Amino acid sequence: MTDPFVVIGGDAAGLSAASKFTREAPDRDVIVFEKGEWVSYAHCGTPYYVKGTVERLTDLLSLSPEQASERGIDLRRNHEVVGVDTDAETVTVAQDGETFSQPYGDLLVATGAHAVTGPIPGAELDGAFTMHGLDSAAAVRAALSEPGDSTVDTSIEYVDTALVEKYADWEPPERVAIVGGGYVGVEMAEAFRAHDVETHLFQRSGHLLPPFGEAVGERVADHLREQGVTLHLNTAVEELVGDEGGRVASVVHGDGNTDVDLALVGIGIKPNTALVEDTPVELGASGAIAVDEYGATSVDGVYAAGDCAEDTHAVTGEPDWVPLGLTANRAGRGIGQTVAGDPSPVGDIAGTAVVKAFDLECGRVGLLDHEQASAAGFDPVSKTVTAGSRSGYYPGGDDTDVTLVADRESGRLLGGAIVGADRAAIRIDTLATAIEADMTIDELERLDLAYAPPFSPVWDPVLVAAKVLNGQLD
Amino acid sequence: MTDPFVVIGGDAAGLSAASKFTREAPDRDVIVFEKGEWVSYAHCGTPYYVKGTVERLTDLLSLSPEQASERGIDLRRNHEVVGVDTDAETVTVAQDGETFSQPYGDLLVATGAHAVTGPIPGAELDGAFTMHGLDSAAAVRAALSEPGDSTVDTSIEYVDTALVEKYADWEPPERVAIVGGGYVGVEMAEAFRAHDVETHLFQRSGHLLPPFGEAVGERVADHLREQGVTLHLNTAVEELVGDEGGRVASVVHGDGNTDVDLALVGIGIKPNTALVEDTPVELGASGAIAVDEYGATSVDGVYAAGDCAEDTHAVTGEPDWVPLGLTANRAGRGIGQTVAGDPSPVGDIAGTAVVKAFDLECGRVGLLDHEQASAAGFDPVSKTVTAGSRSGYYPGGDDTDVTLVADRESGRLLGGAIVGADRAAIRIDTLATAIEADMTIDELERLDLAYAPPFSPVWDPVLVAAKVLNGQLD
Repeated sequence: MTDPFVVIGGDAAGLSAASKFTREAPDRDVIVFEKGEWVSYAHCGTPYYVKGTVERLTDLLSLSPEQASERGIDLRRNHEVVGVDTDAETVTVAQDGETFSQPYGDLLVATGAHAVTGPIPGAELDGAFTMHGLDSAAAVRAALSEPGDSTVDTSIEYVDTALVEKYADWEPPERVAIVGGGYVGVEMAEAFRAHDVETHLFQRSGHLLPPFGEAVGERVADHLREQGVTLHLNTAVEELVGDEGGRVASVVHGDGNTDVDLALVGIGIKPNTALVEDTPVELGASGAIAVDEYGATSVDGVYAAGDCAEDTHAVTGEPDWVPLGLTANRAGRGIGQTVAGDPSPVGDIAGTAVVKAFDLECGRVGLLDHEQASAAGFDPVSKTVTAGSRSGYYPGGDDTDVTLVADRESGRLLGGAIVGADRAAIRIDTLATAIEADMTIDELERLDLAYAPPFSPVWDPVLVAAKVLNGQLD
Repeated sequence: MTDPFVVIGGDAAGLSAASKFTREAPDRDVIVFEKGEWVSYAHCGTPYYVKGTVERLTDLLSLSPEQASERGIDLRRNHEVVGVDTDAETVTVAQDGETFSQPYGDLLVATGAHAVTGPIPGAELDGAFTMHGLDSAAAVRAALSEPGDSTVDTSIEYVDTALVEKYADWEPPERVAIVGGGYVGVEMAEAFRAHDVETHLFQRSGHLLPPFGEAVGERVADHLREQGVTLHLNTAVEELVGDEGGRVASVVHGDGNTDVDLALVGIGIKPNTALVEDTPVELGASGAIAVDEYGATSVDGVYAAGDCAEDTHAVTGEPDWVPLGLTANRAGRGIGQTVAGDPSPVGDIAGTAVVKAFDLECGRVGLLDHEQASAAGFDPVSKTVTAGSRSGYYPGGDDTDVTLVADRESGRLLGGAIVGADRAAIRIDTLATAIEADMTIDELERLDLAYAPPFSPVWDPVLVAAKVLNGQLD
């Protein structure tokens, strides 16, 4: 192969692949085309920048363009790939109004995902944001700050400074609307409340954090109310309405109107697949790019990874689309190694996710939803138990709610969720490991887990839940 | 079976067995003989009572005698079993100077362990303690308090009040010696320092917490020094010397003498097996009672569980003696169910242990020691890495040191250790689960573990360690 390894997208998956490739095959070329200014930033950290926990936006960079160069990566920012020709094995790249054609030996599509705002009219108004990208994080933080606040940096390298300057002039909002009660909505509620802003969260369904199941959702809802968030559950937002100046002024929803000064729309993301839609590269049922265990698409020499690609789910063995940070990094790394000549699987996913909701830690893994489990051919049975996170006599513990889902016939652990204030989220890793090892509830119940009064009771909450659910299976 | 299920010992294993048995076979009799006043107390909590974190000694009771009765358990305290006749299927019980014979249908030996003090002369002096039992915990706390301190309760039910009263009259010590740098020594150092006592810790070997490996031991040593503990490593204590009144006054050790007002000896425990030594019940190589996967000894109808019994190690498949709380509870529970007629394995052990060392959390699991791993037929290779516990930009994280040991040929994970200040201990459960699932380092590296900036970086420290060690195995 004389043509270079071409990577489309300079974020987690793309730069992980390029980094691994340059280490494994230092004599070969890799070019990364990134359409924006930013590369490899910690998307998951943006709510904490808005909140103020993270001081500088640049702290969220995990690899600077300079570091990428030092690794031997030919990184081209402000280069947007606008076309892919898998027959000619070239990509068409736009830069500064010009386009050129770049041949590739192997190609990695790591184009990520985008936040959806439809079908909510008005999401384009001034003062209405999504949290996908650093520009919007910088803009929201600027909008939350007093005009002239010296902690707001309007001239951050790589950022859309015009946008930030605009919002830096705004008076801080008195009342904000969050549309959507998923990760982004819950994390941003914490960020807004940290700025003492009246916060209204609208969720179409009756539960927050749907992928985490009802037990987590209900506890998080109670906790958000305690933290002063006004929840509007079972309330669909129909429209954001602006004032004469085109600035968001009101939320129209199922229960009427709520006047707001700022709105944050976090109702989901979709994979960026437009580039391959006119190519033979096949999409999966999820709408993301279908790949095999090495991240290879249906077209020879074309790979896909990160938020634009599917993965194989460890429980179902079927493709699934769970766009998260670790799996993007890991898949990129595997593909970099494979393209370098040492085939390396990208690894299954277990759908592991954790989220902080003010003082609560939430985790989920595997199949929690009974309908989803049934559709995958299982006969799901589940149980939620509440157990202490520490020995009862040791202060600082908290009730930890553990939900486990198992297959009735085989006893196999299918999924789990955990919520609590004391070391709850990290306990999901025990379940993730058990799920990837195809453990049964019976095996889970007999695990030799850690016990010391400050950290865990004799029977860890995970073991208590396994014991109770196993009793139901007997 | 018309004769009752007889249990010797009313602590974790014994009462777990009796409780499970009464639930499963409510029409049958179970008698628990406990030689002391206390039953089912949280041994692991005693350092925190001495420290003052736990306010009342009675908080450490996990099951009161009254609760045991309510469960239908015939609990006889102050009844010491002094003989076992496995031919006649009877035990001889001493109470108030009388003895009687009690026939049994099945017998569970759950006699626990005792702290060793030998070969250190002087360990019987006034002011020299071990931490095995609630009486000594009460006495040490009394000794640490000002005479007349109202928080010292000298009349706690079930406690040796004469002993406590004696130490309650003492002036608090200015300087204490801890002999032994294992769990007890490290936890008691924290307890003594909380009372602002000058604390000297003597450890025969060069490392604290030997079962946790060198990386943990060294970090804990540095941390203890920061906390004002004077460490005497590689320093064997030869003798405790008393004053004229028979009160400990000095420690004689390899480097000379150190004057002290109080001494705590924590150099290990041994299984209480004296009762079965004249019976056909076989002991294992460890000196604890040998059992099969159901906790059954070599004699029909006789079971053993808890600190007096061996278990099967998940990595070696061989018997091992790791006396800890969860496995005692679990084995008791399994035996209760088995004796009730529903055979239930007691479960393997993975040697999982965690300990708090001031602000550090330490965990270990499996085979860490290369000699031990080699003796078990493995070719161990290990690596220690340091990685952040959270995303670098998120405050509150800490360097987390992870040691992994794998078998070179098969890549199988054999053991691991973790130390750090932020959610480090609980991460050992991921490794415990992986070990019990016979995972390889390669599989460990590809686990879909949790990622969210406040809780974990993209690559959890466990994954970083797996990645590095896997690179060595390739």
